[in-house]
Amino acid sequence: MSAPFSFSLLNKTDNAARRGEIVTPHGKVQTPAFMPVGTQATVKGLTPDDVRGSGAEIVLGNTYHLMLRPGAERIAALGGLHAFMNWPLPILTDSGGFQVMSMSALRRLEEKGVTFRSHLDGTMIELTPERAIEIQGLLGADISMQLDECIGLPAPRKEIARAMQLSLRWAERSKKAFGARSGRALFGIVQGGDDRVLRSESVRALIDIGFDGYAIGGMAVGESQEVMLKIVAETAPQLPRDKPRYLMGVGTPHDLLEAVARGIDMFDCVLPTRNGRHGMAFTRYGAVNLANARHASDARPLDEQSAHSTARSYTRAYLHHLIRANEMLGAVLLSKINLTYYQELMAGMRAAIAAGRFADFKAETMAGWERGDIAPLPAPG
Amino acid sequence: MSAPFSFSLLNKTDNAARRGEIVTPHGKVQTPAFMPVGTQATVKGLTPDDVRGSGAEIVLGNTYHLMLRPGAERIAALGGLHAFMNWPLPILTDSGGFQVMSMSALRRLEEKGVTFRSHLDGTMIELTPERAIEIQGLLGADISMQLDECIGLPAPRKEIARAMQLSLRWAERSKKAFGARSGRALFGIVQGGDDRVLRSESVRALIDIGFDGYAIGGMAVGESQEVMLKIVAETAPQLPRDKPRYLMGVGTPHDLLEAVARGIDMFDCVLPTRNGRHGMAFTRYGAVNLANARHASDARPLDEQSAHSTARSYTRAYLHHLIRANEMLGAVLLSKINLTYYQELMAGMRAAIAAGRFADFKAETMAGWERGDIAPLPAPG
Repeated sequence: MSAPFSFSLLNKTDNAARRGEIVTPHGKVQTPAFMPVGTQATVKGLTPDDVRGSGAEIVLGNTYHLMLRPGAERIAALGGLHAFMNWPLPILTDSGGFQVMSMSALRRLEEKGVTFRSHLDGTMIELTPERAIEIQGLLGADISMQLDECIGLPAPRKEIARAMQLSLRWAERSKKAFGARSGRALFGIVQGGDDRVLRSESVRALIDIGFDGYAIGGMAVGESQEVMLKIVAETAPQLPRDKPRYLMGVGTPHDLLEAVARGIDMFDCVLPTRNGRHGMAFTRYGAVNLANARHASDARPLDEQSAHSTARSYTRAYLHHLIRANEMLGAVLLSKINLTYYQELMAGMRAAIAAGRFADFKAETMAGWERGDIAPLPAPG
Repeated sequence: MSAPFSFSLLNKTDNAARRGEIVTPHGKVQTPAFMPVGTQATVKGLTPDDVRGSGAEIVLGNTYHLMLRPGAERIAALGGLHAFMNWPLPILTDSGGFQVMSMSALRRLEEKGVTFRSHLDGTMIELTPERAIEIQGLLGADISMQLDECIGLPAPRKEIARAMQLSLRWAERSKKAFGARSGRALFGIVQGGDDRVLRSESVRALIDIGFDGYAIGGMAVGESQEVMLKIVAETAPQLPRDKPRYLMGVGTPHDLLEAVARGIDMFDCVLPTRNGRHGMAFTRYGAVNLANARHASDARPLDEQSAHSTARSYTRAYLHHLIRANEMLGAVLLSKINLTYYQELMAGMRAAIAAGRFADFKAETMAGWERGDIAPLPAPG
């Protein structure tokens, strides 16, 4: 009934950039792939049809949020996360570790795991590597992530090393707890902050344990894009060629382009939906802030040549009005526009890699962003 | 290019209930009709396609909100409200009077009109009968409403009479200002509170002025359903048989059924969308509060026999989760479900009137509501 997990590179790589395909029990994912974030069992404001319509083939679910509400056991009793949120395609779940660190004010980190206070009702909850794997099993994830400790940057090397080592011990326990879960995949997470030596040590130890895919974690936590890309460039080539590589929590369209150029296959990020809710549109000509007064009387669409009807059929003036009036529809339309733009960007990268012209595509795409938005309308005379 | 406004009764009435058709420059509206409310140039959370998908053939726009933001002149410069909000079908606009009374803390009512402080930026703004008509022309409304003074109930008879008389003088000025606006319609508004004599006086004077349709205003302002239906039953038969009758701001599904039985053709109300945002679903078996804990583990759909896929394809547990987690998608899905239920109810009434079995349809529909929601799942044991 369900295909086991697999990954294959579909053609020779275009320098470091890779064109691949992930097979999961819920369908295939063409890589490089961008995963919209469905934090609380919904990509904010959008129906599953909207999300599929954007071109997405996989979404991410957040273990931290779902374990607190509505609860992993409840979702399992309701048939798993796919059935719960009416999403029939693949789902990757994170381990909850990142949100425990970022959302819970009170927490205690021990060898065994992390104990934290729920931000919803104040109860104390324990999350261990074994429980994180159990929860992701209850959710029915196609791809599960090991529990890790993710720290912000900058940080002292000693602290980065300690967290990386703890994450490795948790990686081993995660692998053991995962066992031979039929057809499903478990990814390990490379830690080591901005330290090349620690990152390499993490990579080697994870490969020794053996995972179905490898993530680069601990990025997009305060470092510059330059540092992030340097770590990616150093780390990706050390990862097994025949396994997917996932850069967690990244990023802007420019981040995606540069990271694919360095050998990354998978991404997730809240930027397209979160920034959309606040009035920012991502377009072929860079980011456009629709809350800006320059759009108030502008009857032109956001991008008249977009393949996406939403970007063509509403005026800038209307989108501006919806954002200024704090209307839900503004968040809905801009989330659709941004997710579609992200997916178009990924599709463009995939086609370019397949055609052996990724460098040209990258240069053309960046030239579009640098060109910037169309000029404002002349002031009424 | 555009048909002039007209109204025709399509068949013999079924007792007082009427089956009709309104023709406007933007298309036809089958009556009895329910108009979703698009306050700020959007039915909250829904795309125009969603609104059409619910079965709506006309929406209402709020003059008060639109004149303040983005401004009537701006909407006119952008091609009118239809183009602005991407809604190609008919639009009725109110006159702004009701919202001035309900939303603006500081206002001064005079013979000339009403001056109020904008709730957005504090500027003082004047709204006269003439300006209300001008604004609705700028918006491009298919059906415009006269400016009236709408007061809450209960109120002293003298106060009700004064407001009714002022509304009549404003009705005359509105008619004069409207002139012969090509193909478009202007409706007068019957006032007079809960007083039969004052209502009759208002009706006679409005008929003397002559309008394309007649609204019963000043209802749903604090009175009981019994009082409201009594006024409707007394007022509707006095209105011209060959003009549409619009009961403003009403109401619940039960209100609609009872008012159609008394000869009303048109309705608008925020209930289906506002209550949807707060977790209440309107169904064939009455209102269901999805925030209630009884739904938390209920894998059954809201209504497995609904003609609307949203009511069939999401579980009660998922809708409950979205509402509890304050997720936008909960508001979106329940707004769709409720607007669709309202339109199904109207379609059912129209078919029943055409078939001469409105009384049976009314009894069957009320029996469904009285049956109530399906029983909760047994407690796990």
